[in-house]
Amino acid sequence: MTDPHSGFGLDHLPYGVFSVAGGARRVGVRHGDRVLDLAASTGRPELATPSLNALMALGPEVWRQTREEARSLLEAGAETLPLADVELHLPFEVADYVDFYASEHHATNVGRILRPDSEPLLPNWKHLPVGYHGRAGTVVPSGTPVVRPRGQVVTSTGSAQRSTGSTSDGRAVPTYGPTERLDIEAELGFVVGTPSSLGDPVPYAAFGEHVFGVVGLNDWSARDLQAWEYVPLGPFLGKSFATTISHWVTPVAALEAAWCDLPAQEPTPLAYLGPGQVRGLDIDVEVELDGEVVSRPPYRTMYWSPTQMLAHLTANGASVRTGDLFASGTISGPAEDQRGSLLELWWGERFLDDGAEVVLRYSAPGTGGGRITLGEVRGRVEPARVD
Amino acid sequence: MTDPHSGFGLDHLPYGVFSVAGGARRVGVRHGDRVLDLAASTGRPELATPSLNALMALGPEVWRQTREEARSLLEAGAETLPLADVELHLPFEVADYVDFYASEHHATNVGRILRPDSEPLLPNWKHLPVGYHGRAGTVVPSGTPVVRPRGQVVTSTGSAQRSTGSTSDGRAVPTYGPTERLDIEAELGFVVGTPSSLGDPVPYAAFGEHVFGVVGLNDWSARDLQAWEYVPLGPFLGKSFATTISHWVTPVAALEAAWCDLPAQEPTPLAYLGPGQVRGLDIDVEVELDGEVVSRPPYRTMYWSPTQMLAHLTANGASVRTGDLFASGTISGPAEDQRGSLLELWWGERFLDDGAEVVLRYSAPGTGGGRITLGEVRGRVEPARVD
Repeated sequence: MTDPHSGFGLDHLPYGVFSVAGGARRVGVRHGDRVLDLAASTGRPELATPSLNALMALGPEVWRQTREEARSLLEAGAETLPLADVELHLPFEVADYVDFYASEHHATNVGRILRPDSEPLLPNWKHLPVGYHGRAGTVVPSGTPVVRPRGQVVTSTGSAQRSTGSTSDGRAVPTYGPTERLDIEAELGFVVGTPSSLGDPVPYAAFGEHVFGVVGLNDWSARDLQAWEYVPLGPFLGKSFATTISHWVTPVAALEAAWCDLPAQEPTPLAYLGPGQVRGLDIDVEVELDGEVVSRPPYRTMYWSPTQMLAHLTANGASVRTGDLFASGTISGPAEDQRGSLLELWWGERFLDDGAEVVLRYSAPGTGGGRITLGEVRGRVEPARVD
Repeated sequence: MTDPHSGFGLDHLPYGVFSVAGGARRVGVRHGDRVLDLAASTGRPELATPSLNALMALGPEVWRQTREEARSLLEAGAETLPLADVELHLPFEVADYVDFYASEHHATNVGRILRPDSEPLLPNWKHLPVGYHGRAGTVVPSGTPVVRPRGQVVTSTGSAQRSTGSTSDGRAVPTYGPTERLDIEAELGFVVGTPSSLGDPVPYAAFGEHVFGVVGLNDWSARDLQAWEYVPLGPFLGKSFATTISHWVTPVAALEAAWCDLPAQEPTPLAYLGPGQVRGLDIDVEVELDGEVVSRPPYRTMYWSPTQMLAHLTANGASVRTGDLFASGTISGPAEDQRGSLLELWWGERFLDDGAEVVLRYSAPGTGGGRITLGEVRGRVEPARVD
C-alpha cells in the first residue's frame, strides 16, 4: 500500500471513542496509527462525551464542519496520541439494530442449503430488502470475546447433529446445550445520525442527510439454535448473543469515491425504492480465520443498496433515531472464495471451534486516489460457560 | 367496584412520568385520580428525570423502599395534583423490545387462519416461548395517534385483497399503499429494571430481581404487509410503525396477589424453563373498539409464563438492560369473545377503519383484597399520509 498512513490518511479520518489510562471517554479521530483528541483540541462539549451520538445528532452540516476542523488540526500539526496508548470503546449507543439480507448470492446459497428441493430465493426477495430487528443491547466493540452460546438444539430425522434429540416416533425433542454450529456473518453496518419523524418515510435520496457513517460488522450466528427457533417469527437467540462492530466509524463523506453501479435489479423495484437511481458501494471485505484469509467478499455485488435499505426500513412511517444501526446482511459474492459465512464456505459441514479468532477487514477507494481501510472487526470464541 | 380509588388505591401505586404546563418531566405516582410528585416530595435526584430508567436501574431493594416512601407520603396526606392537570409521557426509555407469542389459543387461531391445511402449532411452539425483536424506537405512549402505515402488499391467487397485484402468469406483484388489514394485538409488557451481564443467563427464579413492572401494550399490526414480508426472517414493517404502551407502570410488587397456576405444560419444558415451578398472572384484559367492549382476554390462560420468557430470552447469554421491554404476544383465551386480535375475532374478514379508537384495559387482584386497574392503552387510527 502506497498510502503513508496505511488507509488512515487525511481522506479517511474515521471517528471513535477512546480513553487514556482509565480516564473519561471522549471522541477521537484516527490518523495513521495515532489518535487526535477531538474533544480536547476543539473544546466542543458534544465531543467530550462517551459516544458519538451527540455529534451524530447534529446533522450533515456539522459533520462536514467537524471533518474539516479535524483535517485542519492535523494539517497544522496538532498533538496526537499513539493508538497503542489509548483504549477504544463502543463508538456509539446503539438505538435500534436492523439486519438485512441484501446479498443475492448469500440468500441463494442459504436457500440451497436449507431448502434443497425448492427455489432458493423466496417470492418476496427481489421485491423488497428482507430485514428484521436484532438485539441492540448485545452489540459489542471489536475485540470483545464471544462466549459460545447455549440454547435449544434438536435432531431432526435425516440431518442429525446430536446423538440424542428425537423420540422413537420421530418427533423432534430439543436439548439445551452449547451450539455446535457457531458461525460468522461478514457485513457492513450503517449508522444513523439525524433522526426522522414518526409517520414520515425517509426517501432513498435522503440517505446522506440521515446516515453518518459505516462500520464493519460481524453478526455471529448459532445455526442450530436458529434452525429450530426461527419459524415463524424469525431469528432470535441464534443471533442475539453478540454482534461485533468496529471501533472506528468511517464517515459517509470518506466514501465518496466508493459509490458504484449496483448489479441490475429485475423485476424493477417499486418507486419508493428508487429504481435505476440508487448506487452501491465498492468496498472489499476480507475474512480472516486464525490468521488465514478464507474469503474476500466484494460489497459491490450486493443486490440491494444501503439507500434502498433505509427507504424500505421507514416506508411504513417507522422513524429512525440517532444511533440506529442497520446492516447489510452477509456479504457474499458469486465465487466460492467470496462467501461471507462459514455456512456457505464450508456448506454446513464445519463451524467455529473454541479459541477460533475471526478478523474482518474492509477497504475502499478513498477520495485521495489511494485506498482507505475501514475499522476491523475482531472476535475470539470462548468456551460455553457451565453453571 | 368498592375500591374508593377505582383500582388506584394504596395497594397499587403505579409509576409514571409527568409534567405540568410544559415544565420539566419527572417521576410521579398515581393515587386515585391524583398524582404524587415523587421527585419533589422525596427530593431524590433520580426521580427528577424524564424517565423511570434511573429508578429502575437501582434494583429491587430501592424499588421496595421507594414504594414504601410513596405510600407513607400519601398516608401522611402529602400534596397531590389532579390527574387532569398533568401531561403524561412515555414512562421509560425503551432499550430493546422483544415480543413473544405465548398464547396457545392465539398461536392456534393464527395457524388455522394462515395455514388451514397443516397443524396449527409449529413443532417448536411447545418447547420454547417463540419470540422476536421489535422496534424500540416506535414504542409510543397511550393516546399517540397511529397513522395508517403504507407498505408492500400483494394479491396472491385465491386470497385477493386488492384488485391489482398479479401478472397473467400468476406471479405475485406487490403494490405500495396503505394497509387494508390494520389490526391490534392486546398484550402485556414487562419492563426490566436491573441489568444482567453478557454471557450469563437470567434464571427463571431471578424474575423479581430484574423485572420492575408491567405495562399494557398494543402491538399494532398490518397483516397484509406482514404476510408478504415475514418469510424467512419474521415480522418487520408489518409491526414496526407503532407499539403503544400505557402511561403507568404497575410495580411487580403490586401484583403479588395475582400470581396463579399456569395451564399444564405438556411436553415438560427443559429444565432452564423451570417446569412445574413457574406461575402465571391472573390479569383480566378488556378490548374496547369505538366505545364497545369486543373482547375480554384472560391473561391467566397464557401457555408460557413471564418468568419463562425472561429465562428463554437470556438462555443464550444475551444480557438485559434497564428499559428492556418484553411483551407476551397477543392474549387470547379459549372462547370466541376472549380473542386479543381482530384477525381472530373477525377471522380475517374485517379490520380497523380510519378513525377507529381502540382502548385496552387491564385489572388484577390487588393485595388489599379488591382489584387494581393497570394503565390503559389508547390509540386512534389516522388516515395514511399522502406524499
